[in-house]
Amino acid sequence: MAVYTDVSFEDLERLLALYDIGAPLSFKGIAEGVENSNFYLQTDQGAYILTLYEKRVAESDLPFFLGLMEHLAARGVNCPLPVKTRDGRLLVGVNGRNAAIVTFLTGIALRRPDPAHCGAAAGTLAELHRAGAGFALARANALGPEGWQTLAQSIHDADRIEPGLTALIARSLEHCVAAWPQDLPGGVVHADFFPDNVLFVQDTIGGVIDFYFACNDFFAYDLAIMLNSWCFEMDGSYNITKGQAVIAAYQAVRPLGADEIAVLPVLMRGAALRFLLTRTFDWLNHDPEALVRPKDPREYAKKLRFHNRVTHAREYGL
Amino acid sequence: MAVYTDVSFEDLERLLALYDIGAPLSFKGIAEGVENSNFYLQTDQGAYILTLYEKRVAESDLPFFLGLMEHLAARGVNCPLPVKTRDGRLLVGVNGRNAAIVTFLTGIALRRPDPAHCGAAAGTLAELHRAGAGFALARANALGPEGWQTLAQSIHDADRIEPGLTALIARSLEHCVAAWPQDLPGGVVHADFFPDNVLFVQDTIGGVIDFYFACNDFFAYDLAIMLNSWCFEMDGSYNITKGQAVIAAYQAVRPLGADEIAVLPVLMRGAALRFLLTRTFDWLNHDPEALVRPKDPREYAKKLRFHNRVTHAREYGL
Repeated sequence: MAVYTDVSFEDLERLLALYDIGAPLSFKGIAEGVENSNFYLQTDQGAYILTLYEKRVAESDLPFFLGLMEHLAARGVNCPLPVKTRDGRLLVGVNGRNAAIVTFLTGIALRRPDPAHCGAAAGTLAELHRAGAGFALARANALGPEGWQTLAQSIHDADRIEPGLTALIARSLEHCVAAWPQDLPGGVVHADFFPDNVLFVQDTIGGVIDFYFACNDFFAYDLAIMLNSWCFEMDGSYNITKGQAVIAAYQAVRPLGADEIAVLPVLMRGAALRFLLTRTFDWLNHDPEALVRPKDPREYAKKLRFHNRVTHAREYGL
Repeated sequence: MAVYTDVSFEDLERLLALYDIGAPLSFKGIAEGVENSNFYLQTDQGAYILTLYEKRVAESDLPFFLGLMEHLAARGVNCPLPVKTRDGRLLVGVNGRNAAIVTFLTGIALRRPDPAHCGAAAGTLAELHRAGAGFALARANALGPEGWQTLAQSIHDADRIEPGLTALIARSLEHCVAAWPQDLPGGVVHADFFPDNVLFVQDTIGGVIDFYFACNDFFAYDLAIMLNSWCFEMDGSYNITKGQAVIAAYQAVRPLGADEIAVLPVLMRGAALRFLLTRTFDWLNHDPEALVRPKDPREYAKKLRFHNRVTHAREYGL
């Protein structure tokens, strides 16, 4: 959580000259987003977020991310709406970075969502899945089974983090890749639908943010990412009441097929493995000069071990 | 610029229950302030900053800082106003830290203030000096001549940063301590009146922030800190037009005495030395795990060398 690239008031003034969003009143770097530099911008016309895309976001993916937010917002999903420059561009250059201005969403992320919050968020996820239909661009999931294998090969010495981690990764990877479904209902997924990325105003959804992992994949895999990130307690136990709330609210908007239900335990393992792999890699390759503290991979090792013992979607709250 | 201590929504809800400032709508960690963790908080009643005081701020100094902002705000200085809890407290506890909520000021800090901005800010500094009169508490300047000597003793190997730095520090320290005035008009000073801490809305002052170095000292020393931080160009040259604007605007509110003018070159050297010392110390003792990049001490070494050749306040724009 940091600001990597500085933007001075003078940079901001040059930038705002390209837009029709008024004169700046406030401008603050915000400690949000691991990948990019984000700034809260208030003008006399409204509140916005300026994002500078740092090296971890591929330039070729930006039209997908920005176009998707536009597409979803036009279909009623409460997500940041990219603001166009006077000459119709979504992307601009600031201090050598690609950058975009999006509308600011009111709301606060919850650390400990209760079952009702989980349900409300799951309904929003299902609506997002439906609203993505018809979006013209596509983006493969770089962090799908193939990406996991590449990532796993670049991880050395995982047992430094926790004894047995190397074996857990190898075993789970082999299983997930072999058992991964060939075909399931899919489309545009958020792929990072964590509590951090869902804003609440009191008990209602204020909006969904951070679409920088969005891609085309199975909808039920996105649901598995959500179950992984919303339904475990701090002590590592799975809260089935939250699981029930998530699955029921999701199905109220988009019912799951028998094929999706059958393979949910595999998807849950794959989702846990995906975050275990990236966190393990980031932990082992952490640049101490970086302004971000890596997240603890052991949280997802624990979740993965839990999933490896699950045999039916009922155990998740179906 | 970072958030050191995390505050969850649940923490925030518990905190806001102590106050009468409405329900939270937005809450973001902001990348501001080297010493503390700061959060932008919007409620249905207004915008605020929540500050958690980290270890570098002494607990015993907090009543001075918060009381001073209250005192100044009541006398028309546009500075953050600490908000009281329902039971009248300015300080509360959040996650093991002392914390306070202050009003949010609109405005943006300028990287490259022009002479008119410099003048406007200098007028505000002089008003701040006048408004501090009658404030009941006092705080010695920990970064005055005595503090410099302690700091200098704890600096080893400064020549690693720049050849000759050790000698520059030793020589300047000896001179400044010997030549430092015994008595000058004084009172409460900001002591960190950098462009970062003055917010502008278009070309007018939106407010002054960051009072966490404020203390009792000579007014003209505060002016010297301002001249050091506002009137040098990026290339290290002193902009006398800005210096003239600062000194004239300051004197329009609070004329300088002959004693202050006579000693201005010494105060300028002392101010440059003070920032050179803290930056050198922070540079050499930088914890690579810290979320803050240390500022380059060489900027102030260059300024100090300039001041060491100045013999009269005229050279600063008097």
